[in-house]
Amino acid sequence: MELTALFLNCTLKKSPAQSNTQALIDKVAGLLGELGVSSDTIRVVDHNVQFGVMSDEGEGDERPAVLQRIKDCDILVIATPIWFGVRSSVAQMVIERLDGTYLEGDPETGQFPLYNKVAGVIVTGNEDGAHDAAATTLFNLGHLGCTVPPNADCYWVGDAGPGPSYIDAGGDKHLYTNKTARFLTNNLTYMARLLKTNPIPTSLSSLIADAQAVSR
Amino acid sequence: MELTALFLNCTLKKSPAQSNTQALIDKVAGLLGELGVSSDTIRVVDHNVQFGVMSDEGEGDERPAVLQRIKDCDILVIATPIWFGVRSSVAQMVIERLDGTYLEGDPETGQFPLYNKVAGVIVTGNEDGAHDAAATTLFNLGHLGCTVPPNADCYWVGDAGPGPSYIDAGGDKHLYTNKTARFLTNNLTYMARLLKTNPIPTSLSSLIADAQAVSR
Amino acid sequence: MELTALFLNCTLKKSPAQSNTQALIDKVAGLLGELGVSSDTIRVVDHNVQFGVMSDEGEGDERPAVLQRIKDCDILVIATPIWFGVRSSVAQMVIERLDGTYLEGDPETGQFPLYNKVAGVIVTGNEDGAHDAAATTLFNLGHLGCTVPPNADCYWVGDAGPGPSYIDAGGDKHLYTNKTARFLTNNLTYMARLLKTNPIPTSLSSLIADAQAVSR
Amino acid sequence: MELTALFLNCTLKKSPAQSNTQALIDKVAGLLGELGVSSDTIRVVDHNVQFGVMSDEGEGDERPAVLQRIKDCDILVIATPIWFGVRSSVAQMVIERLDGTYLEGDPETGQFPLYNKVAGVIVTGNEDGAHDAAATTLFNLGHLGCTVPPNADCYWVGDAGPGPSYIDAGGDKHLYTNKTARFLTNNLTYMARLLKTNPIPTSLSSLIADAQAVSR
Repeated sequence: MELTALFLNCTLKKSPAQSNTQALIDKVAGLLGELGVSSDTIRVVDHNVQFGVMSDEGEGDERPAVLQRIKDCDILVIATPIWFGVRSSVAQMVIERLDGTYLEGDPETGQFPLYNKVAGVIVTGNEDGAHDAAATTLFNLGHLGCTVPPNADCYWVGDAGPGPSYIDAGGDKHLYTNKTARFLTNNLTYMARLLKTNPIPTSLSSLIADAQAVSR
Repeated sequence: MELTALFLNCTLKKSPAQSNTQALIDKVAGLLGELGVSSDTIRVVDHNVQFGVMSDEGEGDERPAVLQRIKDCDILVIATPIWFGVRSSVAQMVIERLDGTYLEGDPETGQFPLYNKVAGVIVTGNEDGAHDAAATTLFNLGHLGCTVPPNADCYWVGDAGPGPSYIDAGGDKHLYTNKTARFLTNNLTYMARLLKTNPIPTSLSSLIADAQAVSR
Repeated sequence: MELTALFLNCTLKKSPAQSNTQALIDKVAGLLGELGVSSDTIRVVDHNVQFGVMSDEGEGDERPAVLQRIKDCDILVIATPIWFGVRSSVAQMVIERLDGTYLEGDPETGQFPLYNKVAGVIVTGNEDGAHDAAATTLFNLGHLGCTVPPNADCYWVGDAGPGPSYIDAGGDKHLYTNKTARFLTNNLTYMARLLKTNPIPTSLSSLIADAQAVSR
Repeated sequence: MELTALFLNCTLKKSPAQSNTQALIDKVAGLLGELGVSSDTIRVVDHNVQFGVMSDEGEGDERPAVLQRIKDCDILVIATPIWFGVRSSVAQMVIERLDGTYLEGDPETGQFPLYNKVAGVIVTGNEDGAHDAAATTLFNLGHLGCTVPPNADCYWVGDAGPGPSYIDAGGDKHLYTNKTARFLTNNLTYMARLLKTNPIPTSLSSLIADAQAVSR
């Protein structure tokens, strides 16, 4: 079975500036490749994606094209640097722009477009904030329809205060990050295969009707 | 296939005080029952569970018994009130006490005891804080081995500032909460069945060995 | 003594779209006016402020002008909507762009440009997330040099799930929000006056030298 | 002018177990001593402080004595380890138990007992989570009445994943932690002196009355 993964690199820096987050994406994508999953990355800030919450915010907005690629993948990984202890503004913008997908429920089941996709997260920072960035992002993706397998995050951070980032610090050789990169890729792949052959059947539409009957 | 769910009620109030969190647990447990899942609740504060991070913190500690019930369930739901914008101290203590399970990996795969369980979260508060409480809790449970299906949270909160809680506010009739209670229970049940027949095969042990070979 | 306040409205919506966050800013600015403080608002998304972490990110970037106004005020209030449980991408971008100010320490004391300013926060959302948005934002502003007086936040949120926002919900008449708007404005004003006549004398430069002497 | 600081050590470990958090408290207390501030520490878990939200939760509860010491200090510092990315259950319990102080407003001004105190936070962990723990804690203390000066946090964390804690890692020599310990202590001391001679005059009671007049 063919599986595809999409990485959204939410660095603040446009190409061709070096991105530490991309370096960790590349490692994770390589591991996915070994498991037979093909990967693609969108460096969001290289595209004209405007602030907003609808799927299409008008002329010049490249978001519809990005959204289509999100809808086409099996595995969605948001990769973000940490700024001021939390995920980047670009990562937040990416999530905000997915708000419109709640309105695009499947005609029969009402399931949102991200249902039956599997989600993971990558975080890099020179220090502290990975748990917050990962927890918020995976929770948001779960709300949007994704399933989150165990150990669905991979991050690298240095110790307290300013310091070198992933590449310069030799994060490439960091055991914890390398270990969790493997947990992440194996669990994402297994769960994506499982859901592709056994999609979640839940009819949100009929459950909403049930809820309406007992609410005011 | 028999499935069992365990709710950990993390209210600060001992029995027989009224617990708003229990009221929402009861609703969710009822919906699980309709789906053929039997449920059990532990009101943690009624037991002598001591602060700590090991599975057994010594004499009088009732945690080992609680832990056994966690290990025996298919679906684990942490239910917490909000205090000062985040999950309760009891919920935090419950998570801390699970830290010891990282050391109890399966002899063959190294999988932690919570692998192949499915996790959900219930939050009640008179206002604001449900997203933070839910995101942190689901993320922690994912780290411990649980899989998180889509829409794995159900919460009720009132509007800004002090005010009535779930029971007195008539939260029982709140459409959003009733809707998400159904999303939660249907997705938990489907995913628990799926994982019971298709357990995650990932060998953490061999992945750790792979990681060690490329790290320093 | 003349005091000036600057509000940064971090709505995702450009003018002339209605902004709920602006409505609450207007209320707070009115209360500050009664206390003799003049106010000004920048609706960030109406300006060309680019992603980045330096004070000036190059051609067309209107950030330097915004930054100058931040440096000129006595009271800085970040006002943000909630999206997906946390502050908006625009608020996050505003904070990220302040990262460069760490490098602009006073030649004598090393104090960052935001030292001796007083910070507050305003949050609006149709539901849940105000505590997280406020806590993160005030903490970031404290790191950048601001002092945070007691009760330095004012927010309005509705109950669980989608629903009307501040304006349509009649948030204007919400007691808790009106109460905290007054706590906020009185404490911001008092503290700003106090710091203007009694600026913090801490020499960061000499403390860094002290720290270097005992560190490696 | 005599100033006193109170540290609440929120480690999970009872005496005489070694506490990394205590080691950093001792360093900060030493620096406060050099500035003429006397310090005292309560290791909360050594006392019988029960879960709850009122100032006194009944027989055997040592909280009233702890609360009195909180009311008597000028500078309040909550010191917490990180567990699962956030502050400890003991720190959360300490904050919850302060909920009752909202009801103990000054008869004239309605100010809560923590008004005119100055707050800081210390965080230690073997990795990631300091920003979240510090932001949540300082925000809560601000709500309870404390003023937060700039750079009111001092923390040490190691790099990603398990590893040695503050003491074993030689955190004692970590420049960033030593630098921020000095920023923290100097700013806490200055602000505490300033507020002792210039207490915040805000009458919460009369502002509540004003708010009630314009609300429903």
